[in-house]
Amino acid sequence: MAENSEDPTTARTRMITWNDPSLTLEAARRLSGRQMLEAWMAGRLPPPPMARLLDFTLVEVGDGHVVFVGEPGEQHYNPIGSVHGGLAATLLDSAMGCAVHSQLPLGTRYATLELKINYIRAMTRTTGPVRAEASVIHLGGRIATAEGRLTGADGTLYAHGTTTCMLLRD
Amino acid sequence: MAENSEDPTTARTRMITWNDPSLTLEAARRLSGRQMLEAWMAGRLPPPPMARLLDFTLVEVGDGHVVFVGEPGEQHYNPIGSVHGGLAATLLDSAMGCAVHSQLPLGTRYATLELKINYIRAMTRTTGPVRAEASVIHLGGRIATAEGRLTGADGTLYAHGTTTCMLLRD
Amino acid sequence: MAENSEDPTTARTRMITWNDPSLTLEAARRLSGRQMLEAWMAGRLPPPPMARLLDFTLVEVGDGHVVFVGEPGEQHYNPIGSVHGGLAATLLDSAMGCAVHSQLPLGTRYATLELKINYIRAMTRTTGPVRAEASVIHLGGRIATAEGRLTGADGTLYAHGTTTCMLLRD
Amino acid sequence: MAENSEDPTTARTRMITWNDPSLTLEAARRLSGRQMLEAWMAGRLPPPPMARLLDFTLVEVGDGHVVFVGEPGEQHYNPIGSVHGGLAATLLDSAMGCAVHSQLPLGTRYATLELKINYIRAMTRTTGPVRAEASVIHLGGRIATAEGRLTGADGTLYAHGTTTCMLLRD
Repeated sequence: MAENSEDPTTARTRMITWNDPSLTLEAARRLSGRQMLEAWMAGRLPPPPMARLLDFTLVEVGDGHVVFVGEPGEQHYNPIGSVHGGLAATLLDSAMGCAVHSQLPLGTRYATLELKINYIRAMTRTTGPVRAEASVIHLGGRIATAEGRLTGADGTLYAHGTTTCMLLRD
Repeated sequence: MAENSEDPTTARTRMITWNDPSLTLEAARRLSGRQMLEAWMAGRLPPPPMARLLDFTLVEVGDGHVVFVGEPGEQHYNPIGSVHGGLAATLLDSAMGCAVHSQLPLGTRYATLELKINYIRAMTRTTGPVRAEASVIHLGGRIATAEGRLTGADGTLYAHGTTTCMLLRD
Repeated sequence: MAENSEDPTTARTRMITWNDPSLTLEAARRLSGRQMLEAWMAGRLPPPPMARLLDFTLVEVGDGHVVFVGEPGEQHYNPIGSVHGGLAATLLDSAMGCAVHSQLPLGTRYATLELKINYIRAMTRTTGPVRAEASVIHLGGRIATAEGRLTGADGTLYAHGTTTCMLLRD
Repeated sequence: MAENSEDPTTARTRMITWNDPSLTLEAARRLSGRQMLEAWMAGRLPPPPMARLLDFTLVEVGDGHVVFVGEPGEQHYNPIGSVHGGLAATLLDSAMGCAVHSQLPLGTRYATLELKINYIRAMTRTTGPVRAEASVIHLGGRIATAEGRLTGADGTLYAHGTTTCMLLRD
């Protein structure tokens, strides 16, 4: 128990940069969900701050289907020697929410009601890039559900989940 | 859609510092769950990197009960104008997992099998500090379950959840 | 593998009686949720068919809080030697849904969006009566959540759960 | 509110028959999971009592994949005018649990740790037969997860779910 949180020998630093999300949101209000996601993926809209903070990227947008790539690292560690479960939850929440969003027309928003994650295998700093792939299961008038899987480059399954979203018309 | 992710007028930065988690883990191996959490809370062990990255702090440890405090900010935003659901998931996962951990003797570890979060109200950059409070529901020989709630300073409920953990003996 | 599903030496029978649920529903349309549940508990409305089929009874109705009692028996067995998980799911779904219903005014209905059950201990034919007790966690304008626990006469926890319901105005 | 639970004009009855589950269980102890399910499907073992009580049948067994067919009826009604959510939960719990069971060798048992059901559309007495189809997502040494969907004859989705099971060696 000799470590101190300011011990220079074990301290690492990282500079995080993000953009004012209210400007992005204003631009996004003129776009359908899919257009917004495509603008983000193409760099015409900045990524949301949380994607910068946790280091994940939108790499594929289809109709009711999206893929994010994340890079688990030491900065994501929990106190028990592996990547915090919050990273998989964030990646899958992003992927499943955006899969729903990709099918929403201009003027329809969504809010996530609940999220369920199953953890299959711990990620570590040597896991390498992971892929969070999600698809809509059901898109109704008021409610949508989606499912997602988080896998490594070799197909190893790290986590999977489902979500329920409420749809809201402006 | 004029914003560019490098536009200096909207860019914000933040320096994140953390410690090599493997050193912490080594020290923690000589402690019961509760001793480890108390050492972390007292600053005798550095906080885990994810707590630094997402800005949350362990503030209370009891027998099967812990409290974390987080500070939702702009850096946690999702693309739809509020704090990413991953923050609540991470805070509740931390609190529920550590509530279980607080009851584990030296030589018993845990792994989170699943996490279920209900989102009640969106958090924003003006929400102020939030409190993730969790308690063990059941502690058995192989499996433990816990529940948690995320509330604001005025008691507003933002999210609640449950988790299932597997217990492992070294 | 000598048993045959018609083997008279091991066959047991049970007569199930229920009432046309559409008549009950019509009467219930003139009642608030709580009034309907109280009418059912007092015997002024017949119990729903599923309560007859699986043998459970509403025994307590409060504001956002209800209790059911069930009697796990051999007729509820699964193929692996214990009471089917569907019984705990049905009891907790009933209790959590009715806890929400107890707070709904005349003209507001609800639909269950999702149900999450944790199984803590298997029930058997010798478990005796079990109590499914549920409370509302959050009642909003469009969404409500509730939690429930299933316990034995001696307080043993058999299962616990949460649910999300959507509220609908006529 | 004139109905009485004994009113003969609205009362319906049904005789339920089942077999002593302990005899079945004894026979099943000499079989792998898949052999047991195939024996049940072929009528060489009686169906479990709960399948008789709620009226569902195992119709397909593969490696990590099973299908049940159920027949929602008036006897399954809840107090709010549709089939009780417990029926979908029971069908999906059966299908997902048996999908896991189908991959377990002789001497390995399982216990369901948790069940999560999303309800997409209410079933009624006119829904007709429904199909609960489930597949294993992950089969590890200690834990397995599975997913399932409940659909009508025309493919309409009524519910979907996931489960986590613990594996136990005798």
